[in-house]
Amino acid sequence: MAQSKITPRDEDYSQWYQDVIAQAELAESAGVVKGCMVIRPHGYAVWEKIQADLDRRFKETGHQNASFPMLIPQSFLEKEAEHVEGFAPELAVVTHAGGKELEEPYVLRPTSETIIGHFFSKWIDSHRDLPMLINQWANVIRWELRTRLFLRTTEFLWQEGHTAHSTHEEAKEEVRRMLEIYRDTCHEVLALPVICGEKTANERFAGAVETLCIEGMMQDGKALQCGTSHDLGQNFGKAFDVKFQNENGEREYVWQTSWGVSTRLIGAVIMAHSDDSGLVLPPRLAPIHVAIVPIFRKDEEKAAVMEAADRIAATLREDGLSVKVDDREGLKPGAKYYEWERKGVPVRLEIGPRDLESNSVMAKVRIAELDERGRPEKVSLPMEGISASVGKLLDDFQQKLFDDALARREANTITVDTWDDFTAAFADGQSRFVWAHWDGTGETEKAIKEATKATIRCIPLDGEGPAAEAGACVKTGAPSAQRVLFAKNY
Amino acid sequence: MAQSKITPRDEDYSQWYQDVIAQAELAESAGVVKGCMVIRPHGYAVWEKIQADLDRRFKETGHQNASFPMLIPQSFLEKEAEHVEGFAPELAVVTHAGGKELEEPYVLRPTSETIIGHFFSKWIDSHRDLPMLINQWANVIRWELRTRLFLRTTEFLWQEGHTAHSTHEEAKEEVRRMLEIYRDTCHEVLALPVICGEKTANERFAGAVETLCIEGMMQDGKALQCGTSHDLGQNFGKAFDVKFQNENGEREYVWQTSWGVSTRLIGAVIMAHSDDSGLVLPPRLAPIHVAIVPIFRKDEEKAAVMEAADRIAATLREDGLSVKVDDREGLKPGAKYYEWERKGVPVRLEIGPRDLESNSVMAKVRIAELDERGRPEKVSLPMEGISASVGKLLDDFQQKLFDDALARREANTITVDTWDDFTAAFADGQSRFVWAHWDGTGETEKAIKEATKATIRCIPLDGEGPAAEAGACVKTGAPSAQRVLFAKNY
Repeated sequence: MAQSKITPRDEDYSQWYQDVIAQAELAESAGVVKGCMVIRPHGYAVWEKIQADLDRRFKETGHQNASFPMLIPQSFLEKEAEHVEGFAPELAVVTHAGGKELEEPYVLRPTSETIIGHFFSKWIDSHRDLPMLINQWANVIRWELRTRLFLRTTEFLWQEGHTAHSTHEEAKEEVRRMLEIYRDTCHEVLALPVICGEKTANERFAGAVETLCIEGMMQDGKALQCGTSHDLGQNFGKAFDVKFQNENGEREYVWQTSWGVSTRLIGAVIMAHSDDSGLVLPPRLAPIHVAIVPIFRKDEEKAAVMEAADRIAATLREDGLSVKVDDREGLKPGAKYYEWERKGVPVRLEIGPRDLESNSVMAKVRIAELDERGRPEKVSLPMEGISASVGKLLDDFQQKLFDDALARREANTITVDTWDDFTAAFADGQSRFVWAHWDGTGETEKAIKEATKATIRCIPLDGEGPAAEAGACVKTGAPSAQRVLFAKNY
Repeated sequence: MAQSKITPRDEDYSQWYQDVIAQAELAESAGVVKGCMVIRPHGYAVWEKIQADLDRRFKETGHQNASFPMLIPQSFLEKEAEHVEGFAPELAVVTHAGGKELEEPYVLRPTSETIIGHFFSKWIDSHRDLPMLINQWANVIRWELRTRLFLRTTEFLWQEGHTAHSTHEEAKEEVRRMLEIYRDTCHEVLALPVICGEKTANERFAGAVETLCIEGMMQDGKALQCGTSHDLGQNFGKAFDVKFQNENGEREYVWQTSWGVSTRLIGAVIMAHSDDSGLVLPPRLAPIHVAIVPIFRKDEEKAAVMEAADRIAATLREDGLSVKVDDREGLKPGAKYYEWERKGVPVRLEIGPRDLESNSVMAKVRIAELDERGRPEKVSLPMEGISASVGKLLDDFQQKLFDDALARREANTITVDTWDDFTAAFADGQSRFVWAHWDGTGETEKAIKEATKATIRCIPLDGEGPAAEAGACVKTGAPSAQRVLFAKNY
């Protein structure tokens, strides 16, 4: 690959994002298929790590995977009035198949509440069949006008959970449980702090009674919705006649939930952590944990250096780490360093004749403190106990990325009480997280968006925002029970 | 679920297959979406086991996963003449999206050689970029007239490997390597013996130079093609202009391969091993290895029995086994036995007060030998060392299923040299594997199919069939270099 420059964040944030993705070979725009992307092996390997973590958590909480058809009869969408209104503009439609025009067109699933509702109505009969806890890993299609790699693409990969319960209370617990799983994965694996909250009515999933979400802050101060968990009430139960016999022998509609995260999370990771040298990945998501670069000038040094590099790699691999020994010839160490930095490898080990003599190896973490000469610090690690010391570097780096992202968010979050302060916070293309009072109406929400481009990201759940206290709406002065989170968003 | 009867194989093999799937809750016909199926949790869990095994083998041989768009410009299909001819009748077409008619329709991928060829042409420039070894886990759509759960459905899940190489020799090695991986997974995990061979020109993948395949025998003597691996030559390289600069600085077309297996493998497992009591799963594919059924009459027995059941379960789980303690109330032990048999759980443990007294547990393997009274044998296992003894039951059962399937195939395979013997072998709706000479022409192949419904499943690779010896075609008497495999097929 040609060694190209990454546009600095300060210069053009949007171009920087594209450059990071291209240089790390994470994905590329499909071009020939409008709004679609190809997820390249390095990007897909990150997705596999996200999948593995979530899948484990879903199964531990009793969910089972299944697979439903990608094609949905167009009439199904129309059974839930709000649902079809929300999704109709984004549908792709199959009208011909097998050389003939279809009697009823199929839409490509934009989400699967309808088709799964249909099957729930066949599978659920008694309270003993509940709860029904299903998840699907799948591709979905939403015809978007403006697309951006990972963040918004016509086709994307995701998981969609769909559950049915005998009481609203139990369904609400599920909605909350899955939101917390998403938060835990973001915090523990993606090293991305998120705020848990409730969407306003305007921003709810089409067909939901309530939508909970997690919102992360990107380095430009904009918010990215990272996952949603919906209380569907009995809306789809009624639309698809999903009833169960309760313990008293009465037939009731089930209470349903749905929840999902997508390949968008890869975009979140990129924008939360990466820098002007390229991709930065938290170790728990990194397809390669350690790149070892052997350094030698003379051929007689080569054998010993390579032997040591391979020995370290074998030791680290025994500990479950993924290690790349970069033995490519005709490429200088510096070029190798830049390449693994661009690709987000968390730890680089350099090993040369002098390291052999001192029975140690030089380690550089992907984002290092600067030393006294203003250069990224390298640390010398003794060969003895190399697994433990590299493991510690990785653990510390995972924690550091979370801490840095949290500190950045805190530094970029303000609480305001006046309209002047509010508009100033979003002036000149700036964004940040702003806690402010809102009068609870959709009209005010829209007026604020028109004036500032900032939207209500969420009404925070308990303990997620500033202490809930009453006040006056920043726009209208009308009473407000608690502050809500405003930001510009992706 | 209502306890329904499974139609015996002898009575109606096709209905038996459907009954086994329904009773084990593996999948069901989508009904509302023509030819599609829903893979239910128990079936999807089997698919996950197949995926995990193959994915590990693919990665160990240097392949990386990626994701390409599901939508393919219609014009792409037309770039490779044989490819479009083969797939055109099966295409589903998206003509409208986002509320508008598309300028160029997209087809839903029936397979991804074309779209991946397009990207290979962007990614491959030098011999240093080769080999490129990509795999994709995806859903594909082929509009089939007659569908059957798992075996042939409009939408199915599969993996498709796509690789590019600098020499034909290397590509051919890859084709063979991946076929052998498929064979190993069939033998070691699915417990299904398969025959490796080459397809005739008539049966080749549309656009391939050569297609290798693995063929398994189902219990009705019919063959099921379980996987294919294609040498694409330079056909797609030329169609999509995929060139690389070789070490002499000349630009050449790459040599490509593709290979795939699908959810059809679940159908193969069902038809190879199951019986009139329902699903039979080899332990390496079983989502639940052991079902423990506690047995007690009086409430005072319950606590001790349940405690022992939970203790055994914990011990087995520590050993990595998946264990279900069936503590459902209001269901007799016999009903539980039938349910876990229908679902293909390999080992059932029964534990009651008498077992507690003797510090042991009764074990029943899913397909057991008959005891002297003609009943399926149960064995008493001491609590001491329960993990090892259950592990041995599982290992032995895995081996037994392979051995039984192989013995069944051998008993049902014949070598014939005359047309009379050949037609007799396929008379009256019978099928078996028949080794016979063939003159190598497509005309004779078609004539044999018309006369007997038997097709050439493959020309065996070295060591796969009877010793290669010359002879005369069973139909025309023309010279033949070696016998080929005939069978009726799914």
